[in-house]
Amino acid sequence: MNPQTLNVALAMGPGVASRIFSARHLESLPPGLRLLDSEPMEEFASPRSLGLLAETDILITGWNCATVNTAVLDSAPRLRHILHAGGTVKNHVDSACWTRGIQVSTAADANAIPVAEYTLAMILLANKRVLQVARTLHRTQAAVEPDGLFPDMGNYGKRVGIIGASKIGRHVIRLLKPFELEVVVADPFLTEADAQALGVASIELEELMETSDVVSLHAPSLPSTLNLVNAGLIARLRNGSTFINTARGELVDQDALLARLERGELFAVLDVTTPWVLPADSGYYTNPNVLLTPHLAGSLGTELKRLAATAVAEAQRVSQGEPLRFPVQAADLAFTA
Amino acid sequence: MNPQTLNVALAMGPGVASRIFSARHLESLPPGLRLLDSEPMEEFASPRSLGLLAETDILITGWNCATVNTAVLDSAPRLRHILHAGGTVKNHVDSACWTRGIQVSTAADANAIPVAEYTLAMILLANKRVLQVARTLHRTQAAVEPDGLFPDMGNYGKRVGIIGASKIGRHVIRLLKPFELEVVVADPFLTEADAQALGVASIELEELMETSDVVSLHAPSLPSTLNLVNAGLIARLRNGSTFINTARGELVDQDALLARLERGELFAVLDVTTPWVLPADSGYYTNPNVLLTPHLAGSLGTELKRLAATAVAEAQRVSQGEPLRFPVQAADLAFTA
Repeated sequence: MNPQTLNVALAMGPGVASRIFSARHLESLPPGLRLLDSEPMEEFASPRSLGLLAETDILITGWNCATVNTAVLDSAPRLRHILHAGGTVKNHVDSACWTRGIQVSTAADANAIPVAEYTLAMILLANKRVLQVARTLHRTQAAVEPDGLFPDMGNYGKRVGIIGASKIGRHVIRLLKPFELEVVVADPFLTEADAQALGVASIELEELMETSDVVSLHAPSLPSTLNLVNAGLIARLRNGSTFINTARGELVDQDALLARLERGELFAVLDVTTPWVLPADSGYYTNPNVLLTPHLAGSLGTELKRLAATAVAEAQRVSQGEPLRFPVQAADLAFTA
Repeated sequence: MNPQTLNVALAMGPGVASRIFSARHLESLPPGLRLLDSEPMEEFASPRSLGLLAETDILITGWNCATVNTAVLDSAPRLRHILHAGGTVKNHVDSACWTRGIQVSTAADANAIPVAEYTLAMILLANKRVLQVARTLHRTQAAVEPDGLFPDMGNYGKRVGIIGASKIGRHVIRLLKPFELEVVVADPFLTEADAQALGVASIELEELMETSDVVSLHAPSLPSTLNLVNAGLIARLRNGSTFINTARGELVDQDALLARLERGELFAVLDVTTPWVLPADSGYYTNPNVLLTPHLAGSLGTELKRLAATAVAEAQRVSQGEPLRFPVQAADLAFTA
C-alpha cells in the first residue's frame, strides 16, 4: 500500500486530552497523518462533530469517549480505525463497529508498563533489603552493618516468583532479563511452550510460594481469582521473603498476610489493598516490614502521555500500511477487563 | 588450541573463600579445570603451598591474597593466569608477574553490577515519587492522591543525567535501555563516538545539572574529582530533581546539598557520605527528602558469589582457549582504584 495522508480526529471526555497528549503530539502528527481539529469531540451529534466525522479516517479515542454506534458510523463513511489511548474499549466501541469491520486498537499495554517498572524496582530493593537497612540507619543514626543485619541480602542467585503471566506479568519477566535472578511463573493457562518462549520455568503456585525469595502478584481480578492467595498459600511463604501486590487487594487474604508480617516473618510491598483506602487503625500503616503505596503503580503523571503516544504510533502504522501492534478483536472482550 | 585439563589453585586471606564461593563452585569446576585443593593458600612459603604452586596452571585469587612475586613465580613454573575474584589486583600482583607475561584478570566488573542495579531501582522510584508518596501515606494513614502531590510524577519522558561514563556508569546506561527515559552523560573523557555507541547524548556537566530530573554520580574518586559536584553545580539542580550518590561522599559539597534539601527543593538518595558514618546530629538522618543507605550498593551477601563465579568463568575461557573477558594490563593500574 502506498503511503497516503489520512485524516485523524479525537474523541474523549472533557479534560482528558490535556492529560494524555504532549503539546508536541498535537502540534505535529507523523507524516501521512493530518489532525482535523486539535479539540476533541465530546459527543457525536453536534454540527461540528458531524462535520469532522464526515472526513475522519482514524478516530483516536480517550477515557469517557461517547459511544461509537450505528448512527455515528453512518456519519463517518471513511472511518476504518478506532485507536484507543486508554485501556478498555468496552465502553465506547459498540457492537456495530465490529459488524462493520472497524479495526480497533488499545493502549492497555502502555498501562502495564509502569506497573512492571514499579515491580522491578521493588524486587531489586527487596532482594538487597535496601529499604529495611535504610530504615534502621535513619532510626539509629549510627553505623549499620547491612550484611550483619541480612547475611542473605543481594540480587544474585535469588528466585523471583511471578503469579500470573498476564500482560503486566510478562512485562515484569521482560524487565527481569538483565539480572542474574531466577524467574519462575505460576499460571494455569501458561503452556510449556509459552513458558519456554518467555525464558522462565512454569511451576505450581504452591511450590512458587515455598521457594521464592520475592513473590509478585499479577493475576487478573475475576470471580475465580478472589482470595487466590489464600491463608494456606500465605503460610507457605518462606521466612524472610517479600510479597508484592500491584494487582488487586481482593486477590489476597489480607488478614493472614498481616498476621505473618506482625510476627516479623515476611516483608510486603502493597500498592493495592482491601478496602482501597485502609482504615486509619490498620496494622499495615505501622508495620515496619510493610511499604504501602496508594495505587500509584499504574499510569500517572507523565506516564499518561504514553497512552496518546501509543495511539499516535498505531495511527502511523495505519498510514504506512503496517498492521496494528495492539489490535482488539470482539472476541477478546470477554476475557479482559 | 585443543581443550586440555588445567590445574587450578586458590589463594586468598582467611575466611574469604566461604564468602565468595558457592558450595557448588568448589564441588564441580567446569570441564577442563581440575581444582588441586579446595583449601586456599594463605601464604606461598609452606611446603603445602610450594607443592600446590608446582602444579598450578591457573591461580584464582581473592581479597588479602599474599603477594605473587619473583620467588612465588619461581615456585610455579606452569602458572600462566592469575584470575582475581575481587576488584583491584594492585595489592598482590607484583611487577614480576607482568614481566613474565602472566595473564591477569579482575572481577571488578562484577562489583559494578549491584551498584548499577541499586541506582536503576532508585531512578525508577525517584521519577515516580514512590517513596515520597509512601511516606505521606504511612504518616497520614488516610487517602492520598499521588498525582495531586506530584503532578509531574512518572517514568516517561524524563531526563536522567549520569555523571561519569565509568564502569558503573556504563552498567547504569545499559540497565536504563528498556525504559522510555532520556539518558545524558557528562564525562570529559567520553568521546562523541563512545557516547554514540552507548546510545546516549554527551553534554556538559553544567547543562546536565540544569536539565536532568535525576542526576546520578558515577565518577571515580581521584584527587581531581574531590568536590566535583560543588556548591555552584548543586545550585544548578532543578527544583524537584533527585540527586543519587553511590560513588564517594568526598565528590560532593554535602553542606550545599543539605541546604537545598532543607529548603525542600531537592530529593537525595545517598549510599555514601563524608564522613562514612554521619554524626548522630546530621540533618541528613531526619530530612524527609533524603534516603540514606550505609554503603550497601556494592557487592554484599549473595552478590559476593558473583566475584568467584566471574573468576571461574575466566578460568573456563582459558581452558577453552578463549581470550579473557576482563583482562588487566600493567598500564591500566595507574588509572584505576
